[in-house]
Amino acid sequence: MKLSQYFLPILKETPSEAQIASHRLMLRAGMVCQSSAGIYSWLPIGLRVLKKIEAIVREEMDKAGCHEMLMPTLQSSELWEESGRFEAYGKEMLRLKDRHDRDLLYSPTNEELVTDIFRRYVTSYKDSSVCLYQIQWKFRDEIRPRFGVMRGREFLMKDAYTFDLTREEAVQSYQSMFNAYLRTFLRMGVTAIPVKADPGAIGGDYSQEFQILAKTGESKVFYDQKLLEITTEGREVNIDELKNLYAAADEMHDPDTCPVDATTLSEARGIEVGHIFYFGDKYSKALNAKVMGPDGKPVYPEMGSYGIGISRLVGGIIEASHDDKGIVWPESVAPYKVGIINLKIENQTAKNMADDCYEKLQTAGVEVLYDDRKASAGSKFASMDLIGLPWQLIVGPRGAEQGMVELKNRATGEKQDVSREVALNKLLS
Amino acid sequence: MKLSQYFLPILKETPSEAQIASHRLMLRAGMVCQSSAGIYSWLPIGLRVLKKIEAIVREEMDKAGCHEMLMPTLQSSELWEESGRFEAYGKEMLRLKDRHDRDLLYSPTNEELVTDIFRRYVTSYKDSSVCLYQIQWKFRDEIRPRFGVMRGREFLMKDAYTFDLTREEAVQSYQSMFNAYLRTFLRMGVTAIPVKADPGAIGGDYSQEFQILAKTGESKVFYDQKLLEITTEGREVNIDELKNLYAAADEMHDPDTCPVDATTLSEARGIEVGHIFYFGDKYSKALNAKVMGPDGKPVYPEMGSYGIGISRLVGGIIEASHDDKGIVWPESVAPYKVGIINLKIENQTAKNMADDCYEKLQTAGVEVLYDDRKASAGSKFASMDLIGLPWQLIVGPRGAEQGMVELKNRATGEKQDVSREVALNKLLS
Repeated sequence: MKLSQYFLPILKETPSEAQIASHRLMLRAGMVCQSSAGIYSWLPIGLRVLKKIEAIVREEMDKAGCHEMLMPTLQSSELWEESGRFEAYGKEMLRLKDRHDRDLLYSPTNEELVTDIFRRYVTSYKDSSVCLYQIQWKFRDEIRPRFGVMRGREFLMKDAYTFDLTREEAVQSYQSMFNAYLRTFLRMGVTAIPVKADPGAIGGDYSQEFQILAKTGESKVFYDQKLLEITTEGREVNIDELKNLYAAADEMHDPDTCPVDATTLSEARGIEVGHIFYFGDKYSKALNAKVMGPDGKPVYPEMGSYGIGISRLVGGIIEASHDDKGIVWPESVAPYKVGIINLKIENQTAKNMADDCYEKLQTAGVEVLYDDRKASAGSKFASMDLIGLPWQLIVGPRGAEQGMVELKNRATGEKQDVSREVALNKLLS
Repeated sequence: MKLSQYFLPILKETPSEAQIASHRLMLRAGMVCQSSAGIYSWLPIGLRVLKKIEAIVREEMDKAGCHEMLMPTLQSSELWEESGRFEAYGKEMLRLKDRHDRDLLYSPTNEELVTDIFRRYVTSYKDSSVCLYQIQWKFRDEIRPRFGVMRGREFLMKDAYTFDLTREEAVQSYQSMFNAYLRTFLRMGVTAIPVKADPGAIGGDYSQEFQILAKTGESKVFYDQKLLEITTEGREVNIDELKNLYAAADEMHDPDTCPVDATTLSEARGIEVGHIFYFGDKYSKALNAKVMGPDGKPVYPEMGSYGIGISRLVGGIIEASHDDKGIVWPESVAPYKVGIINLKIENQTAKNMADDCYEKLQTAGVEVLYDDRKASAGSKFASMDLIGLPWQLIVGPRGAEQGMVELKNRATGEKQDVSREVALNKLLS
């Protein structure tokens, strides 16, 4: 993409409403634009990141044997009355009425609707093991939305739901999702640890949050150093291994009863980006979603639900990966892999070389953003650092005369003067 | 995907609420499930079709130089008060209030919001030529939702918006989008013609609808046969070529003033799946979105908007392409390219051959649905015809002994007994 033809509004000044780094950087880098309190439009470069994250989540869900489907954003209140949550859910649930004065709500989560879908079609134990998921916009009417997409009202979330016949199978499903979560966050280039959490409004007797560790995280987490090692090794983890490894969010941590001694207890700040629950037959019973068991007797399936905050992750990853110049994207979620800077567009040699690099990378399928605008070198450097693409390929008139470019790694800051061929080979590998 | 592990609830009986073919077939083929009036969940196989259509639309928009972004579903009423549409838009606009009693609405279209985004960032004529689009859920509170996803309340739509400095450039943008639309529908395997239309609530002085021709279409269209030829040839069309070619929807057609003589006037039934508008500075003026022109004077950009009903197209394509056995998917939007039927799963030779075909096709990246369930041959044939995949590869014990399979083309009904290798080569090509 050529910047001269793109819609990428970079702000020079820091918007006064932004209190945290990710909010500030997302506004300045032209990723999002607030339309009303806690409600954002995603501008082209922001949407690219959102979709990269979405794609990783989708791939890992599919690998775990889950089936993607899509539920509506607006739902009738009826199912929520069956479960008792229409009343129980607080003011964060946005309630509304249609033209016929029927109660609707903007779904904040979907245990009821997915259980309704299950009960309509599944009647036998033979079909009762299934995982359905969706990636869909949700709404929570936060009393005080803030921190940009980190605590927005309309947000994109992946929510998955498992159904199983027995507790053993359900725990197996939980474990499989747990591992899919570890893989998902590792692929995004962030460190996320599972911590014990309050099941809150979903309910249930087993629940873990995944928290991205970041200095600017919203809350404290306490964890056994071994847990961090085990869950970031990239191998399949048996949840039994974690039984004696402590990790708790601030509100669940009590220094007096914490079993871990001070030498292995770590404290960090975290950002919640995922939450998984095992809640047995709470919803299958409430909605009478029973199937015929192998012995002919009806069984209420055991369920779990599994969320990942997709739009929140965009902010979370930035919190974990930025510096004073801007965002530092992990390559897997970067909007583009390479940014080409042409320092002097009036110079024909430089222009030819920058154009040529752009075309070669494009042709090879490398995602590249080309700053071909008429602007000062300083402003181009600042914009590219702000946007945070993993690699910068810098073309100037003097180097171009000798077939040389500068290749800069955004994360390390390392710069190399190399021939065009060496630079392209490196970026193509 | 193996059917034994999939979530594909096929209904044997025709649901009584479905009055038209696409609604009936989508319910029976396990594509969608109604959650409340005019609001549907998309089950896995239905979502696959929705995404195929979405991908074609996205590719053609990107090729036309448009930039994808994403606007929220809920918006504050403020911008709509600026344009005067908060009052003017009828009861189809779903209005609601948040916990702070502020007016929100579920966006039925986005001229206001996109103009607001434009005015926040674009101040100079140099940046004023831009096309932004999104693919996002919308809501129209139809008084009587019916016909499944064809007239639902929550629906998926692509909406694009062009901004240009002059009328000439704006007409050029309109023409470029017009051609992108022709390509889009051709790629989906349907015949869609542009007809003169009532601009309705969007307003504006130039507006065309794209109607899929289908026997079961919702309304009559009248058109000059030459128009059909020109717009389905697959070439770039200059809109001036169409000036003297008549086409009108029922409500715009007046036999007394129709300039086309009876020999070339065709009549058919159509389904509206797209609508494009050129409305000049109606919204840029209302929202005071002016830019500095080349002569230093302020200019209100000329705008157009361009919709495609993505979820509606799923129904529309089925209306145009089905028979009494079920759906007949055009290959470009089919949920899978091939369905494998194993007629007798207990027979080891048949099972080995069907498994082998499945693995070979999967490995080659062909999308394949494998009916490996224990069920009668008749029920498997009926299900596969109902689902409507372009190709069926049928494996039975007798053929399998001799290395033979049956290859059936769903559209033509043609069947061939061929060796496994011939069948696979054909499907891989």
